[in-house]
Formats: sequence, C-alpha cells, structure tokens
Amino acid sequence: MRSIRVDVIDIDDPGDTRVDDFRDLNSVDRRPDLPALPGGRVGKGLVIAEGVLVAQRMIASRFAPHAFLGVDKRLGELADDLTDPSLAGIPFYRATAEVMAEVVGFHLNRGVLAAARRPSELDLGEVVARSRTIAVLEGVNDHENIGSIFRNAAGLGVDAVLFGAGCADPLYRRCVRVSMGHALLVPFARFEAWPAELSVLRDNDFRLISLTPGPTAVPLSEAVDAPKVAFLVGAEGPGLSETSMRATDVRARIPMSRGTDSLNVATAAAIAFYERARSGTMSA
Amino acid sequence: MRSIRVDVIDIDDPGDTRVDDFRDLNSVDRRPDLPALPGGRVGKGLVIAEGVLVAQRMIASRFAPHAFLGVDKRLGELADDLTDPSLAGIPFYRATAEVMAEVVGFHLNRGVLAAARRPSELDLGEVVARSRTIAVLEGVNDHENIGSIFRNAAGLGVDAVLFGAGCADPLYRRCVRVSMGHALLVPFARFEAWPAELSVLRDNDFRLISLTPGPTAVPLSEAVDAPKVAFLVGAEGPGLSETSMRATDVRARIPMSRGTDSLNVATAAAIAFYERARSGTMSA
Repeated sequence: MRSIRVDVIDIDDPGDTRVDDFRDLNSVDRRPDLPALPGGRVGKGLVIAEGVLVAQRMIASRFAPHAFLGVDKRLGELADDLTDPSLAGIPFYRATAEVMAEVVGFHLNRGVLAAARRPSELDLGEVVARSRTIAVLEGVNDHENIGSIFRNAAGLGVDAVLFGAGCADPLYRRCVRVSMGHALLVPFARFEAWPAELSVLRDNDFRLISLTPGPTAVPLSEAVDAPKVAFLVGAEGPGLSETSMRATDVRARIPMSRGTDSLNVATAAAIAFYERARSGTMSA
Repeated sequence: MRSIRVDVIDIDDPGDTRVDDFRDLNSVDRRPDLPALPGGRVGKGLVIAEGVLVAQRMIASRFAPHAFLGVDKRLGELADDLTDPSLAGIPFYRATAEVMAEVVGFHLNRGVLAAARRPSELDLGEVVARSRTIAVLEGVNDHENIGSIFRNAAGLGVDAVLFGAGCADPLYRRCVRVSMGHALLVPFARFEAWPAELSVLRDNDFRLISLTPGPTAVPLSEAVDAPKVAFLVGAEGPGLSETSMRATDVRARIPMSRGTDSLNVATAAAIAFYERARSGTMSA
C-alpha cells in the first residue's frame, strides 16, 4: 500500500492562522472563495471543495489543492487519493468537527475541505476547438443552477460550458458543491464580447441553438442533429435576450403542457443534453 | 370590473392572534404547515402558499384558502383572482412588510401568503383510473426534489404523482413553493401497502418502469411506448429498492457518461417525462 503524501498537521486552536484559507466561509465580506479584489479586503480567489467526492475531483482536476482541512475519518476515506505525487508536502490540517465548525463558521456535515488557488482561465477558442457539444449560458446568475448545469453536462456528455454576459461565478463554493465537483472537471470559458464573440462557435462549424419556449420555435428533437451543437440557455424568467437569439441558427423548444411555466433552466438544459445524446451524434 | 370578495383587514400588531395561521413559519416546533399531531403542540395541518403565482394556483386548486396575509401591493396584484366567489368573506390580512416579517419570523420577499386546511387525500384507485402517465416515488425525502418533480410533471404532461414508502410531505411549504404551486394542482395519492399495492397500477394496464442506472437496464427510449406508463424513481444515492424494482415490468436507464454520478432525481424524472411526451403517446 502506498503512503499518503500530505503532511498531517493537527489543529487544536480554531484561531490558528494556518487555516485562514478556510475561515469564515459564509462571511459575505471575507469568504475566501470570492475572486480577490485589489486591497485584499474581499476574497482570496480560492476554490473550495467540500466533502470527499468533490475533494477527489479537485485532486483529479486542473485546480491543484494547496491545503486540506478535515476530520480524521475523512482523512482515512481520502487515503488512496492522497497518495497522488502532486500532493507531496501539502498540509492536511486535521481537526475535530468542533474546531472545524469554529474555523469555517458553521457546522460542516461533509467533514473535509480542500482549497486551491484559481488558475488562469481557459482560452475560449481552445475550449471550442476541442468540443462537439457545448452549453452557452446567458444571465444565469444562480449558483445552484450553474452547479446543476455542470453536473448535467458531465453526466450527459456535454464537452464544455461557456459563459456569456450576466452569469454568476462558476467557482463559488455552492456552485462547486452542487456540481458534485464537475465545475472543476468540465472545461469552461468566458466570452469577452457578448454576443458578438459567438462568431467563434460559428467559425468552428457549430450549429447555434437557442432554447426558448417561444411559439415559433421548432421542437428540440428537430434541431440537434448536427456534427457540432451549442445550446444557448438564459435565466428563468427573462430567458435569452432577443439579441442573442438573433445570433443563433435556430430556436428550439421543449414541448410543454399549456398553462405551465417554463422549466427550471438546469432541467431544460438537461433535457436538451439528453436529446443531443439520444440523437447519437454526441462526442464519444 | 368585478370587485374582490375577500374582507380586507389591516393588521398593525404582529401579535394579533388573527394571523396565527401564518406565525413562526420557520419554527421547527410550531410551524403551521406541519400535519397536526394529537395534543396540538405541533403543526396545524395547514398548506401555505407563498407569492402571487402560488396563491393564484391555490385559489384554482382543491385546496381552498381560508385566509391571506400580504402587503397592499400584492393585494392589488391578486385583485382579479380575489373576485372568485369561493373566496367570499375570507379575510385578507393586510400588513406592512415589517409586520409580516415579525409574524412569520423572517423577511418574506414574495409579500403574500395564503393558508388552506388540508382536505382529505385523493383515493389512489381513482387517481390511477384517471391517468395515463404517472410518477411513482420511493424514498424521496427531500422537499425540494419533490417540489421539482411536481413542477416537471405539470410542465411535461404527467397526470399524477404517487408516493410509496419513505417520502417527505408534498404539502410542506418549501415543496409547494419549489413546485410553483403545482403540488396543489397535479393529483397525488399515497400507497398504503408498499410495494404490494403497485398491483393497482398493473390492474389498470400500466407498464411499470423502474428508472435506474443499473447496467442491465434498457435505454429509456425503448421503454416508454405503451398506452399507460408509470415511472418509478428512488432517492439519490440508494435509488429504488430491489424489492420495488422486481415489482416492475422493465428497468430503464438514461444513457450516461462513464465516471459520473447519476443525475439528480428530479432531473432524471424530467428526462423520463420528456421521453414519454416525445414518444407521442402522452395524455392529451
């Protein structure tokens, strides 16, 4: 059996500055998983993984953890993963559940956290070039929805998630948790000029599909059969902007019962991903 | 223009006992939307609708509201709905947002609440006899998931939701809210003997389909083409019990990428409902 590479360091004092990267996780002003702003008073630009499964996925991702904080039981559950040579010399701060709760500011059921610095973002053109099925988000500012979209993308064979204007941070702690860690594994990139930069997708021979409940839209099943497909989805309520929809090739709808609301955005996206996979042209 | 039928009563004192049905909505011990238990210390067996849309759906449902609490702006937004003759003489307690917050125990963005007593539950056999597509839940004890399943059922043409063993209360406030009020509109019923009573579905010529990621399951698209279909779904994690799956006709899976988790239960159900609607045999 290989041995773990991390340095296990016991933490008895919740005030120990060595665990500051995990401190006050719910504090609006200080939470370390916000992007760092000039002056250093807000955010540290960290990515925080919660729980064994998400920590495992962080270890397997391009987000290299630089510290762990967890109870002894979770250290044991992660033992195999902690043999990864990339983790050599990284601290695993071991504490009781009570000390952990004092550090993070609330009781944490999942019992282990990992922290990584944010690496530079992926290049939009490179992400697009490597993909055949893509989800493009506009105005999706709910962390839970973004997390669900990553989870659904991973499960249903979508290669990448791209962010247009008005979206929330995909590396926010809640988003990473809801995504089951797939926000760290499914490649994502941001548009700088929105929606003008959709031309990158067009130049790469993607069919651009607006998901919309609009009455002139074709049924989803008639829209997805192309070698490369990008689904544009907007926030619940406003949906996609007309400007963005005009920049796409086709508007497609999920057939709905009369008199109901549109579906949750992550659910609608999952159905589009499923229809895409069902059409048999998804990325292998 | 017709006039509203409710009696508008101004409430200035948060301690006013007339609004007790809306008091301490987050209190574990006293929240009025829990089923009433003997002795009266826990729950009042009420159903609470939050917000204009859900209140409108409650008015349209078999859950007859007996009181409203809301700010003046929401009273105005509900004016058309409050002309319904069934509401004649019912109190609309009008208060400021601050007084409302003191009554319910937290600040309520949605600005209006409606309360109804729980009517007797629907008869399982009658619900089944009137349906062609049904969702059957086992062990789904998360209110948000149950709410999402009702919303997805309404949107995607599912006629009824049936509850097997181990499910949470579909009339819990959070569930009603997440369902966008469809928990009040989509018929539901409970099995008494589980899973033995699945025979009711079989006697009504339903094909019983277990949704499962199991490797021996057939793709969903091969399972749904029958005149009457019931989808069984289990909780995330444990999934359906083997005993329940044995009582079904076929096990069906959503094709998933390797190395990912199963989907959220409400998302998986939505995909099944979509596949059913897509097959063209859904209830009109």
